[in-house]
Amino acid sequence: MSPKARENKMTLLERHDTNAIARLHLNDPGKLNALSDEMLAALQAQFNALKQDRDIRAVVISGEGKAFCAGHDLKQMQQGRQAPDGGKAYFKDLFERCGRMMMTIRELPQPVIAMPHGIATAAGCQLVASCDMAVAAEGTRFGVNGVNIGLFCSTPMVALSRNVHAKQAFEMLTTGEFIDAARAREIGLVNRVAPADQLEAETLKLAETVASKLSAAVKVGKQAFYDQIGLPLDQAYAYTGAVMVENMLWRDTDEGIAAFIEKRPPDWQQ
Amino acid sequence: MSPKARENKMTLLERHDTNAIARLHLNDPGKLNALSDEMLAALQAQFNALKQDRDIRAVVISGEGKAFCAGHDLKQMQQGRQAPDGGKAYFKDLFERCGRMMMTIRELPQPVIAMPHGIATAAGCQLVASCDMAVAAEGTRFGVNGVNIGLFCSTPMVALSRNVHAKQAFEMLTTGEFIDAARAREIGLVNRVAPADQLEAETLKLAETVASKLSAAVKVGKQAFYDQIGLPLDQAYAYTGAVMVENMLWRDTDEGIAAFIEKRPPDWQQ
Amino acid sequence: MSPKARENKMTLLERHDTNAIARLHLNDPGKLNALSDEMLAALQAQFNALKQDRDIRAVVISGEGKAFCAGHDLKQMQQGRQAPDGGKAYFKDLFERCGRMMMTIRELPQPVIAMPHGIATAAGCQLVASCDMAVAAEGTRFGVNGVNIGLFCSTPMVALSRNVHAKQAFEMLTTGEFIDAARAREIGLVNRVAPADQLEAETLKLAETVASKLSAAVKVGKQAFYDQIGLPLDQAYAYTGAVMVENMLWRDTDEGIAAFIEKRPPDWQQ
Repeated sequence: MSPKARENKMTLLERHDTNAIARLHLNDPGKLNALSDEMLAALQAQFNALKQDRDIRAVVISGEGKAFCAGHDLKQMQQGRQAPDGGKAYFKDLFERCGRMMMTIRELPQPVIAMPHGIATAAGCQLVASCDMAVAAEGTRFGVNGVNIGLFCSTPMVALSRNVHAKQAFEMLTTGEFIDAARAREIGLVNRVAPADQLEAETLKLAETVASKLSAAVKVGKQAFYDQIGLPLDQAYAYTGAVMVENMLWRDTDEGIAAFIEKRPPDWQQ
Repeated sequence: MSPKARENKMTLLERHDTNAIARLHLNDPGKLNALSDEMLAALQAQFNALKQDRDIRAVVISGEGKAFCAGHDLKQMQQGRQAPDGGKAYFKDLFERCGRMMMTIRELPQPVIAMPHGIATAAGCQLVASCDMAVAAEGTRFGVNGVNIGLFCSTPMVALSRNVHAKQAFEMLTTGEFIDAARAREIGLVNRVAPADQLEAETLKLAETVASKLSAAVKVGKQAFYDQIGLPLDQAYAYTGAVMVENMLWRDTDEGIAAFIEKRPPDWQQ
Repeated sequence: MSPKARENKMTLLERHDTNAIARLHLNDPGKLNALSDEMLAALQAQFNALKQDRDIRAVVISGEGKAFCAGHDLKQMQQGRQAPDGGKAYFKDLFERCGRMMMTIRELPQPVIAMPHGIATAAGCQLVASCDMAVAAEGTRFGVNGVNIGLFCSTPMVALSRNVHAKQAFEMLTTGEFIDAARAREIGLVNRVAPADQLEAETLKLAETVASKLSAAVKVGKQAFYDQIGLPLDQAYAYTGAVMVENMLWRDTDEGIAAFIEKRPPDWQQ
């Protein structure tokens, strides 16, 4: 990659780390922070780095400008049609890259918190649904509205239908209509709603809360959370029971429990 | 079938098509629109026809009289006991036919919207739960109350427990108590609630909205929705990614995206 | 077991049966009704007995003192570390026993209703989530807050994540923060909320309602509920259809339906 290209990439997706929290800021407001090839690559690169990063304990994703994220870059997709195969190979690769990025969020050891404002549509709504938690600005509008232009949000629905009830997801997908932040919280798509001018503070407070925990415990817990969710009950208990045993044998957990019993703060080595 | 029988059947379940919307109207008010053998056959016949119907883009199911649907026809079931086997073969066949009818709703290419009013109980509540969406009249009461007469709503719970949370479904099933339309919306059993005198208008508005979309996109989207819901995340993305690629390669989707970029209405051939 | 030990055990977990309802009362208020080895054994013994008990039609679980249940007995767990293996074998056995106890609740023929008040944390919150239904006192606080002491609530999340939406469960697990009873009802963790002074009456009313039903129907219905929940739709219908056929062939169901048609109370032999 040329220095110029690298600089563009860094600009496209800003990252600032403070207090063990990595903030990823989508910075392509002219495109409503669309998930272009470049944005997908930048997110994947950051997630790959965060996967190995033991200093970061929580991740926050926000967006610059009027929208959190408006989904795929439609102009770029239309350009993909110029290929001899009409874009087939490009589209296949594009949705694979997008799905991989979304799934990498689950594979990170850190909780990932979406901080949507303005609008979050199509793959932008999928990004919110794919994060472990979400804090939305009052007034944020959420939609999986590809159906309005003839492109059903089939991949966004994978994430959406794992967040909310079936009829609620189906309505959003087939009407293309928006729901607001309050309704999004009601149905399970976001955790908290804050006035726009307190969105950042509220989100960072949540991030700091999870960042203050024993990071090794959060890491195994997050992994176990998604791994057990589809298992039969007995298998889920066998699996998580083994996780609990491992967790109990750590020095820091011994110390954490001892400190709790002795009513003092834990002296963690983490 | 004799002409007389055919006429009765048409009366039992009315169908009126307008603006690409098929309205199925349960018309056996004396039996609270019970799912008798005849009503099940009439519904199955209509669904089989709709499955092949490319002109219809949305389906609305409503009921005549005081109730949307009161479940199975208990008198007819009791008559089934007269058989030498005490009704065993008849009951087996009955629940197979009923389950097949409910599953056919999912197989239709069109979104199916229940429009319940009055009461929707037992298999009548299952019919609401089995539809893709539902708009209920204020005051509608929903129950899976077979337990009150010693017949646990085991088949209705299949649909109900795929709409709402476990404890909420369990309570309805074991208490036999009703919930009202507002609570039904809260827990995910219906999408919208309207005053009785606006129920039809609200439901048709929703039907017209989905009917206005590219029908091929809604068709593949609906099928993918139910097919992906139980899959592990990676398989769900592999499957829906392939659906998205296919969707992208259609002429009408190309046109839909181009029109959106150019800020003009799409010229769809659908 | 010595007579003395037996007496202690009976004291630790009180059981009083009235009107076909078994009330299990956690009675270790000095330990906030922690799930110690002794308490787990006492609960398992009662559940094993209830599994065979055809006179009991509903079970209510409550707690003495300030808390419903504060989870595992941390002091006892710390003592387990004294073993040559650092406690590994003990912890493995402990989580197996705890998981088995939680799963036995599902295997009981009777609906089990948690009646939490004060606080229900960690495995105490898991106990609420594992019950078929729950009625909470206003002001009850629910948390899966092991993360605060470095021990992620991995086994409690198995039950919690089968009650509420993913993001809601994830937030509770990684923040360790409490939610109140009203929010617990909103998200699906409890069915009903009552003022503290009406908690017992409200819970018993619910228990009496389910106890008044045909117990054989409730039994097969409860088993089918959990067995069908993870099945593909067609398998779920095949399975529950067979349950319905069996249910229809009972004498008491015949009588229940006949009585309903004739508008008289059923004469059940149950």
